[in-house]
Amino acid sequence: MRIALDAMGGDYAPEQIVAGAIDAAREFGCEIVLVGDQEKIYRELNKYPDWNKLKISVHHATEVIEMGEHPVAAVRKKKDSSLVVAAQLAKKGECDAVISAGSTGAAVTSALFTLGRIAGIDRPTIATPIPTGHGVTLLMDSGANVDSKPRHLVQSALMGSIYSECVFGIKKPRVGLLNIGEEATKGNEQVLNTYPLLNQMHTINFKGNAEGRDITGGSFDVVVCDGFVGNIVLKFAEGLAKTLLKLMREAIMKGGLLAKVGALLLSPTLKKFAQQIDYAEYGGAPLLGVDGCYIIAHGSSNAKAIKSAIGVACEYVKQDVVSRIRENIEKEEMLADDREK
Amino acid sequence: MRIALDAMGGDYAPEQIVAGAIDAAREFGCEIVLVGDQEKIYRELNKYPDWNKLKISVHHATEVIEMGEHPVAAVRKKKDSSLVVAAQLAKKGECDAVISAGSTGAAVTSALFTLGRIAGIDRPTIATPIPTGHGVTLLMDSGANVDSKPRHLVQSALMGSIYSECVFGIKKPRVGLLNIGEEATKGNEQVLNTYPLLNQMHTINFKGNAEGRDITGGSFDVVVCDGFVGNIVLKFAEGLAKTLLKLMREAIMKGGLLAKVGALLLSPTLKKFAQQIDYAEYGGAPLLGVDGCYIIAHGSSNAKAIKSAIGVACEYVKQDVVSRIRENIEKEEMLADDREK
Repeated sequence: MRIALDAMGGDYAPEQIVAGAIDAAREFGCEIVLVGDQEKIYRELNKYPDWNKLKISVHHATEVIEMGEHPVAAVRKKKDSSLVVAAQLAKKGECDAVISAGSTGAAVTSALFTLGRIAGIDRPTIATPIPTGHGVTLLMDSGANVDSKPRHLVQSALMGSIYSECVFGIKKPRVGLLNIGEEATKGNEQVLNTYPLLNQMHTINFKGNAEGRDITGGSFDVVVCDGFVGNIVLKFAEGLAKTLLKLMREAIMKGGLLAKVGALLLSPTLKKFAQQIDYAEYGGAPLLGVDGCYIIAHGSSNAKAIKSAIGVACEYVKQDVVSRIRENIEKEEMLADDREK
Repeated sequence: MRIALDAMGGDYAPEQIVAGAIDAAREFGCEIVLVGDQEKIYRELNKYPDWNKLKISVHHATEVIEMGEHPVAAVRKKKDSSLVVAAQLAKKGECDAVISAGSTGAAVTSALFTLGRIAGIDRPTIATPIPTGHGVTLLMDSGANVDSKPRHLVQSALMGSIYSECVFGIKKPRVGLLNIGEEATKGNEQVLNTYPLLNQMHTINFKGNAEGRDITGGSFDVVVCDGFVGNIVLKFAEGLAKTLLKLMREAIMKGGLLAKVGALLLSPTLKKFAQQIDYAEYGGAPLLGVDGCYIIAHGSSNAKAIKSAIGVACEYVKQDVVSRIRENIEKEEMLADDREK
């Protein structure tokens, strides 16, 4: 198993990317190809005296796609960028999976251009694991597509269900449709038209509508929504977490000596608590529906997040998620029909 | 100033509703008409020996609309329900404002049926204040309308801006359009078509797109979105808060003696912190666009939330929010045209 890792993408590249690769190579024993500016990568690698005993190699790429660039234009123009070259290693069969913490738009574009789509899937979907404290809920789509048609959400549900089973080991994952009420008669046109289709599917365990509170409530394993809604929910959660932490720190600073001692005594507990809800524990978000394994890591991934993303990629390839998606498309008549068109 | 308060609506009715009315009558000096089962209401009132020195009266209503009932059917059928009778007191001019913590659907329906809409407003909108720790951001719509047209979002923006100014005292409120990116070229069809309209408005201070993280980030005072998105974000926040609290408690219980002592020492600080982000401090959510003042209180409102909602209603009436909305519709040509049609 070989994984192409974009060493130049993300806020803490290449330092944290290389650190994550070292940890993953040690723990999972998979082979990692670091793609990017070889000089910078070797400088990081040489911080680990034993790195050349691990299955790590470097593939040079001269360019880097920056966060602000237009995804399609950047992918077209920067053919020797770490992000594009990493995807091509997978296309050529030299690697089994690709991971990037760079621009999400550019990652989606380059995955689509180079790996292509699985037949029967119109639009690949970003499946983001949301920690609930006792596991995860898979939120999909979290931003790849807006104005999705009902059949796109059906495809999402099928793929999310397989991913949840293969990578998180959940049997018969409970799939919900994100909506503003539990009743099948509630919602906007998009979800009203999607509900009956999900209800007809053979390959998923559809449990009806999920409300906003169910995303972290633990009663659904996969929550399906349009990328517009998913992206807003995800960024809202990030913003809220930051706001709460900031306010909590301010309150402790103002709270005098007792509050500070209390915070000190409580700090090991708080650290464990933070770990329970830390996205970095759950690795990146796969772009489901592309014909291969492409994991999008968070832009501010640290070494732990990169290591987790590599772990996810290994599981994805081992469980052959792509073949499983193909099989289930065959089983769902409405999607198999789409595929033939 | 007289306020009709549905004494039977909400999870803690009539006890907490009456308690909130007592506190508000003491603090704000406004007149409150408690609407509902008079026997139950007097039983609660008699817990306060001095209640008849306050400007509180009781208006008997024999029926109650339950949470599970179909809004339109319930409002049509239960003509002597506390929720419907309260709205009629406002319609007849006997009260200046209505507050209910009952079924949101029934509240919206009864407000529309009895008070009607302001000319130029197609769809009234629920404006929910989201605490940011240092004030609030007004999220609108939080669930009254789905599949909104761009002109509905324009109307929302106009109303939210006035409300933020009148009730929260913010000068030139910064209005944002909730979207998945900052750039004007990002988003779904709905927001792409809304952006240029908001940009043309004279009566609001439009600051461009707001992302999910901006809802609690403090850089916008009013965030405009479709009710489908707003409702999901709001319920997600509620669910997340519950999940975090539960996990935190579990972590402290498992954390041993030091963690428990730490939590004890920190508890006054945590209480202050919780107060900063407690929605009950900010009262209910007005249904903006109806021809009158209708405040929807949270279903699980306690006495504090009811008191805050009454405070908000007083401010709404004093500042004559309805007339201000009418004036600004006149100033916005595109809406004044709508009005004439």
